[in-house]
Amino acid sequence: MSRNTFFEKKGPFSIHLLFSKIKSTKKIFDIRNLHEATDVDLTFLDNPDYTSDAKKTKACYCITTEKLKNHLPKNCEPILVKSVLLEICNITRKFYPSADLDRPDKTLKPIKSKNYPKVIYGKNVLIGKNCKIGKNSFIGSNSVVEQNVSIGENCIIGSQVVLRNSIIGNNVVIQDGSKIGLKGFGFIPIKGKNLRFPHIGKVIIKKNAEIGANCTIDRGSISDTIIGENTFLDNQVHVAHNIKIGDNCMIAGQVGFAGSSVIGDNVSIGGQAGVSGHLKIGSNVKIGGGSGVVKNVKDDTVVMGYPAVPLKEFIKNSKK
Amino acid sequence: MSRNTFFEKKGPFSIHLLFSKIKSTKKIFDIRNLHEATDVDLTFLDNPDYTSDAKKTKACYCITTEKLKNHLPKNCEPILVKSVLLEICNITRKFYPSADLDRPDKTLKPIKSKNYPKVIYGKNVLIGKNCKIGKNSFIGSNSVVEQNVSIGENCIIGSQVVLRNSIIGNNVVIQDGSKIGLKGFGFIPIKGKNLRFPHIGKVIIKKNAEIGANCTIDRGSISDTIIGENTFLDNQVHVAHNIKIGDNCMIAGQVGFAGSSVIGDNVSIGGQAGVSGHLKIGSNVKIGGGSGVVKNVKDDTVVMGYPAVPLKEFIKNSKK
Amino acid sequence: MSRNTFFEKKGPFSIHLLFSKIKSTKKIFDIRNLHEATDVDLTFLDNPDYTSDAKKTKACYCITTEKLKNHLPKNCEPILVKSVLLEICNITRKFYPSADLDRPDKTLKPIKSKNYPKVIYGKNVLIGKNCKIGKNSFIGSNSVVEQNVSIGENCIIGSQVVLRNSIIGNNVVIQDGSKIGLKGFGFIPIKGKNLRFPHIGKVIIKKNAEIGANCTIDRGSISDTIIGENTFLDNQVHVAHNIKIGDNCMIAGQVGFAGSSVIGDNVSIGGQAGVSGHLKIGSNVKIGGGSGVVKNVKDDTVVMGYPAVPLKEFIKNSKK
Repeated sequence: MSRNTFFEKKGPFSIHLLFSKIKSTKKIFDIRNLHEATDVDLTFLDNPDYTSDAKKTKACYCITTEKLKNHLPKNCEPILVKSVLLEICNITRKFYPSADLDRPDKTLKPIKSKNYPKVIYGKNVLIGKNCKIGKNSFIGSNSVVEQNVSIGENCIIGSQVVLRNSIIGNNVVIQDGSKIGLKGFGFIPIKGKNLRFPHIGKVIIKKNAEIGANCTIDRGSISDTIIGENTFLDNQVHVAHNIKIGDNCMIAGQVGFAGSSVIGDNVSIGGQAGVSGHLKIGSNVKIGGGSGVVKNVKDDTVVMGYPAVPLKEFIKNSKK
Repeated sequence: MSRNTFFEKKGPFSIHLLFSKIKSTKKIFDIRNLHEATDVDLTFLDNPDYTSDAKKTKACYCITTEKLKNHLPKNCEPILVKSVLLEICNITRKFYPSADLDRPDKTLKPIKSKNYPKVIYGKNVLIGKNCKIGKNSFIGSNSVVEQNVSIGENCIIGSQVVLRNSIIGNNVVIQDGSKIGLKGFGFIPIKGKNLRFPHIGKVIIKKNAEIGANCTIDRGSISDTIIGENTFLDNQVHVAHNIKIGDNCMIAGQVGFAGSSVIGDNVSIGGQAGVSGHLKIGSNVKIGGGSGVVKNVKDDTVVMGYPAVPLKEFIKNSKK
Repeated sequence: MSRNTFFEKKGPFSIHLLFSKIKSTKKIFDIRNLHEATDVDLTFLDNPDYTSDAKKTKACYCITTEKLKNHLPKNCEPILVKSVLLEICNITRKFYPSADLDRPDKTLKPIKSKNYPKVIYGKNVLIGKNCKIGKNSFIGSNSVVEQNVSIGENCIIGSQVVLRNSIIGNNVVIQDGSKIGLKGFGFIPIKGKNLRFPHIGKVIIKKNAEIGANCTIDRGSISDTIIGENTFLDNQVHVAHNIKIGDNCMIAGQVGFAGSSVIGDNVSIGGQAGVSGHLKIGSNVKIGGGSGVVKNVKDDTVVMGYPAVPLKEFIKNSKK
């Protein structure tokens, strides 16, 4: 994830102001993923799947647990905590105090042709400050484009669309009513008042992609949500935070992705299928309509069913 | 359900004008649930599950069947009919002639800061008469708040939201594109022209709750639809009429609830799961993603599958 | 499908300009279905299911394959190709160069009572040229009705609705946030840049039908998408291109239809069920909630499950 232009950022903070048990006054500029952190950033390690990233991190400090601390390199001092997630949440809220909620953009104004002379737009289009829209792009009536959003050339954005915290490539189509770049469904459950996880990621929609009508694509929490080149989504698809979908995929209507899964290239997914969180779906995979995918799927595999299994197995089971 | 401020109400009607076979001229002021009716109200009993409520009703008349009439107390005279549902529908339409359809609110006007000085709002926000909005609440651009809707303090309502017939507590978040308080999917099928059931209930969203983007929450038909305190719904969730969800629940994306089910506290439901109508789901229940729940679920149970069964059973079946 | 008023149409073209290997200069006026084509139209045959239509076609030319050409009558000359779909796509794009994408309607203007004196409408309703709206119809705030759309009498169109390329009968209800008549999810997958199939069909919603909130109903590609009389759809239903639903059907929330299936009369479908593409579902069929229908279903059948099977079989399997 490149440095963030969408959220007000505080800091740097001395590390001892973030964690009083650390006695150093070293300045920390940001909280970032293991592989994105630089030597003035804090990072985190909570999942044994990421130990190879951990070994190479450049971060100076890492929020982690007793069990995982040995995977960190010498340059990176572990900060041992009980709940890594809770600490990430609290620290991220200090750096990005407004990223936990989607307050309406106060800079929105009706779009004017003197500012966007090469853009074609409908009635009552609202646009925030510092937006970029490429030439020959269309924006439909009653759509809202919030501050700092970037839209490429030759795009068609429908009516009643909302775009926040997003970077849209050239030749992208987004149909009516889709809501892109909202905060995701991430929080630490606390009775009476859940603690919302800040969502400091973006949505990146790459060139030639298409998003159907009434879809929702949430922005990432710490990383970005990405829709690959020439990937087409049908109507009412839900893409949760941090999902990364590759190039040339076809996602049929009402498919849902839980958070943080990575989908390869040339993947086709039938209508109403669901993909659980934190999975890795390979390239050239086909997922049958209505399937529920709960495990990783290797390249070049056809799966179907609930839970999804290889097609042959599904057919055999159906005939029992 | 408290007395209704959202719908124009007719009456009182003499009981013999409602049912010509009853010779009394006693004035009837409303049609209400068994436990909410007072001694000037008419009620109804169609389902043997509600006989304990029936025994305690204060209503003076009850629409019911030969089979169920003996469950009523002495103060409550049974009115025997063939189809209780059809009669409720017809009588409710007499008391509330405009609650069967959602005609656009003619009192909508652009919101003005002199009327809502402590509210922050976007462009083109429309608001009906007699709405209340608490201080420090945000209303996003192009949203519509219809007459008599009440919104608490510190709420964040996104863009392109519609709120009708709803009471929203403090600190509630409703994300872009959600439609709350519309009439539900209730009608008596009649070839050529279905007879729509009036929807005289409200939607009540309690404090600290969150509703994702592009959700739909229908108002109740005779009772209310309720979302409990600190209950969070992800995107594209559909909540049908009369559903009551408890406190501290987590409902993931694209979950659907058919009408009139009651969900306990601390329930978590995975993405794309469905809950059939008229069920009772206990507290501390976990429902796996993609499940289809067709039976009541007891407290503290984990269920999964289609139809949903206890988790152990599901795993056993999957391994066959 | 009647002659099309929604899309700019080019032509006629001499057949040898469309297919250089045909030496005739005969003028071709349109590309149409087998049973709709006249003797100045081109048609296509790709699917053995349609050979009985083929035998009766009036078209003068038919794009088809070596294998299927013998099903055509003498009046109709076959044009043999490798990929019928690709050729239909290319030819349709020549006749209808703007039907592959939904560019915003540049003729949209705020509705005025002098033009629609018998229509009741909310704030900020936008309407394109040549629209018809019958008397006593309501149009909710922030809704968009694009050019040439026709709406009957006594209709209720909610807020934040988009209607394109649609013909709506009398007494139809469309609830808030639904998007009707958009191009469907049809394209020929080509790495890097899919080739979009033009969508020159309409959406026809017949009298007394009801569409819930946040639904999506795509227009047809070559034929129309049709919702029958007195058929009711609940919220968040997705109807893909070319679907034809009969009369008096009840379709519960979050149901999805893949493209080109035909549904009979008096069909009821439970919540979250899915119907695959190119199926024939008979009349008086009941499909259980959450089912996935992947085969044709005969009249008067109850099916359930994933894949859906007759109810008895489903119950037997569930008890194993």
